[in-house]
Amino acid sequence: MQIKLDRSNGRAIYMQIVDALRYKIDTGQLPPYTRLPSSRQLAQELNVNRITVVNAYAELEAEGLIKSHVGRGTFVAEVPTPVPGEKQATPWRLPIEAIPRHDWSPNLMMREMMRLARHPEVISFAGGMAATDFLPVVEFRQALNEVLRRDGAEALQYGDSIGYYPLRQTIAQYLNQQIISAGADDILITDGCQQAMDLVLRILGREGDIVLVENPSYLGLLDMITSHRMTPIGVPTDEWGMQVERLEPLILRYRPQLLYVVPTFQNPTGVTMPLERRQALLAIAHKYNLPILEDNIYHELYFDTPPPPSLISLDEKPSSLVFHASSYSKMLIPGLRLGYLVAPPPLQERIISLKQAIDIASSSLNQRALNTYLQVGNLQPHLERVRSAYQKRRDVMLEAAERYFPKTARWQIPTGGLYLWIQMDTDGPRATDLYLKALNYGAAFAIGSVFFAYNPSLYTMRLNYAACTPEEIEEGMRRLGKAWRELLAQPAKQLDLEGQRTIPIL
Amino acid sequence: MQIKLDRSNGRAIYMQIVDALRYKIDTGQLPPYTRLPSSRQLAQELNVNRITVVNAYAELEAEGLIKSHVGRGTFVAEVPTPVPGEKQATPWRLPIEAIPRHDWSPNLMMREMMRLARHPEVISFAGGMAATDFLPVVEFRQALNEVLRRDGAEALQYGDSIGYYPLRQTIAQYLNQQIISAGADDILITDGCQQAMDLVLRILGREGDIVLVENPSYLGLLDMITSHRMTPIGVPTDEWGMQVERLEPLILRYRPQLLYVVPTFQNPTGVTMPLERRQALLAIAHKYNLPILEDNIYHELYFDTPPPPSLISLDEKPSSLVFHASSYSKMLIPGLRLGYLVAPPPLQERIISLKQAIDIASSSLNQRALNTYLQVGNLQPHLERVRSAYQKRRDVMLEAAERYFPKTARWQIPTGGLYLWIQMDTDGPRATDLYLKALNYGAAFAIGSVFFAYNPSLYTMRLNYAACTPEEIEEGMRRLGKAWRELLAQPAKQLDLEGQRTIPIL
Repeated sequence: MQIKLDRSNGRAIYMQIVDALRYKIDTGQLPPYTRLPSSRQLAQELNVNRITVVNAYAELEAEGLIKSHVGRGTFVAEVPTPVPGEKQATPWRLPIEAIPRHDWSPNLMMREMMRLARHPEVISFAGGMAATDFLPVVEFRQALNEVLRRDGAEALQYGDSIGYYPLRQTIAQYLNQQIISAGADDILITDGCQQAMDLVLRILGREGDIVLVENPSYLGLLDMITSHRMTPIGVPTDEWGMQVERLEPLILRYRPQLLYVVPTFQNPTGVTMPLERRQALLAIAHKYNLPILEDNIYHELYFDTPPPPSLISLDEKPSSLVFHASSYSKMLIPGLRLGYLVAPPPLQERIISLKQAIDIASSSLNQRALNTYLQVGNLQPHLERVRSAYQKRRDVMLEAAERYFPKTARWQIPTGGLYLWIQMDTDGPRATDLYLKALNYGAAFAIGSVFFAYNPSLYTMRLNYAACTPEEIEEGMRRLGKAWRELLAQPAKQLDLEGQRTIPIL
Repeated sequence: MQIKLDRSNGRAIYMQIVDALRYKIDTGQLPPYTRLPSSRQLAQELNVNRITVVNAYAELEAEGLIKSHVGRGTFVAEVPTPVPGEKQATPWRLPIEAIPRHDWSPNLMMREMMRLARHPEVISFAGGMAATDFLPVVEFRQALNEVLRRDGAEALQYGDSIGYYPLRQTIAQYLNQQIISAGADDILITDGCQQAMDLVLRILGREGDIVLVENPSYLGLLDMITSHRMTPIGVPTDEWGMQVERLEPLILRYRPQLLYVVPTFQNPTGVTMPLERRQALLAIAHKYNLPILEDNIYHELYFDTPPPPSLISLDEKPSSLVFHASSYSKMLIPGLRLGYLVAPPPLQERIISLKQAIDIASSSLNQRALNTYLQVGNLQPHLERVRSAYQKRRDVMLEAAERYFPKTARWQIPTGGLYLWIQMDTDGPRATDLYLKALNYGAAFAIGSVFFAYNPSLYTMRLNYAACTPEEIEEGMRRLGKAWRELLAQPAKQLDLEGQRTIPIL
């Protein structure tokens, strides 16, 4: 079968196969009931990994274009023919079963990671959450009770779409301490940082648009971009974060609508952009009038010295280009689902309108309780507690990594945040192989390749050191190391072609 | 100035003026610095209301295409020219100030209504909320405390994107009692009914798509449709709800992607579709494979007899076309922001993925507390309390309407839900005039015209009888009636041409 693959165009190989086959089916080159080659056959023919073809077939089957029968093979599906007087598929409407999927495996990966993180047998470093053992249950319960005593039924009624005014005031004070110029009315309360970012994508972008991201970047944002039928394009990173000097050609080539960046304790790499890079990034953004979405969610989780100022605080006041999103999910309580967004003032009204359109308002009870909690001055002591605990856990993980991991493994010591990013030796097992093996021993981590917008490194993994106790970290790392060493001891497998032929970095 | 208006094409007149002027500016027919006619002049020339032109100019100014100078007039804006080495507006990126607005005045109207509803001086029948005085503060506080005692920090951690499993089980049991076939895994927990509907629009629709709605329909959904850059097309309604027999030509003409309907105690009209119409609607939907989004949020708020079964329960099991959305906002606690969605099974996985992409998950604390509240059997007694209270309030409002309103006012007696829909005499003042006058007397209502997808009736209003006490209803209706009678006593104003020339109903 003739399929042309372009390894340099940024679209996943399996999706290129999907596109090619869909086209052949739609145009009748592959009529109904045509038998497709087996995944093994096609993989050989195209010189790709078999998993790639399996994924492509699964996607086509989900779209209703092909059908596989166990033992008989895979066939082009029949076209549903309208029976007079019966259910009729009108030409402009696909039946619901055949509506194309726009989610992709990393989304499932993320859900799997969250599920695993709660499995009692598995010590999981996979999740993106803060430690459960430091969540301030007692103080927050007091805050809830105080709010319901004080405000009664008002606390259970609808609130303003922009958010509870006293909470916005509290956040404004906090931002002002960080040299961010924002009054209560410049702040929109959202359902976590995630919703804040979704609002920005919806206001700025349209189907088909390009969003620049760090490569690798936060999985949830890659996923969100794709769900909007936009395309993430990765900017190369190094030990200081996004390589700003490589940005300009990408802007000229892709004409992006937005740049998404986690400048501090990045997810998944844990690195922090130094001041000069931040300034350089702002200069380029202004040169091209390119809006920046700054995800500041890990900012408070530093160990020794506070990180450099946020992008929005380094820009003109108020910033005309930076959308500053953050939340209380990583630094306080994930289950509240409360975050906030500071947008350039000309867009604030429209963003509030959109927030109202999509879910009316965030929970007023949670907003009031959070404000009461913050007003009592509970946040700073809580942050001091978790900072020192996370630092200790980081140290335990680093020591265990030295002890249990192969000498070829490399990493950069994180100075804050939740994640340790591990580079594995490319002569050894891939992260996916290690993942499966480690799971058998009761340890889990996040496979690094899912965080890439393109050119995924198959020999990387992300470990969350914050969410487990020191004892669990020690034991989990031991299990991981054991799995890794066993894989290394196995005879070298056949080299995988797709894995070797990487696309040159842009 | 030559502008051709088409009063039958469903697009708002002011937007038609915007389109025409934008085209003239973009194509250079109106070069920079051209002075535009005053709003009064242009309104006369086009034979429209001056407000229409003012709105059109405001929109163009928001888009950065024109600029008004107080005292000097309105001019076509200059085209920003790039200064070498300076900030450069690249051809593909608008500066943030110039990004087109996609919200519209009803969105602001809705926010204004919610704000007014909380103003202490105003007795407001404008909001869409249930009564604050029946919110179960004590019981819910007990549930919150029990959850935090029992689950501790787990209750504050992230939860599954699909929702808290025990809550989904509880909802499944409730749905099964209503002959809706859904297991716990067929239910997605959302941030209110609103988010459930947003997910459906995002999964099924794309920019430019058509959504059929009742005319008039729920403002929040019209707004949401527009925010997705889709177009709502209204289906005529009568005292039995959507006129299903008029649906087929609309489907053939507009090729909609979705039909949105509130079959029970509709917002804003309060009417309920009888069983036969529901069945006829399902038959047509199946004939054309047209998905239905059923908003069931008022279902439990009946006064005498339960309403007919929901659409999803009348369809095949499981339904392949009906998305069933509901929430606890109207029947229990708005401030929780918790609702749910039952989708056709082939789409369930994708909808969960999308929910994860846009905000990860709903608040686990709120979900757990709601489940505890429901498990104790608190909902039924609460519903019995509010049903009888709302019925009494409806009766108080109906009596007051007889007493205070002009004899020409007409309405249909609602048998459940929150709203009384009033048809005003077209010889008297418009609803907007009455609104302004009534506000001076400390009474507010929702102006009916904002609920229409096309051909808005300027002589309608929606009154919420549930949210005020009987005493407030009596006093508020007295104020409203006073304002109304005073307007009627004024000399007849010049007839407004735009208001008179209504578009024929499709």
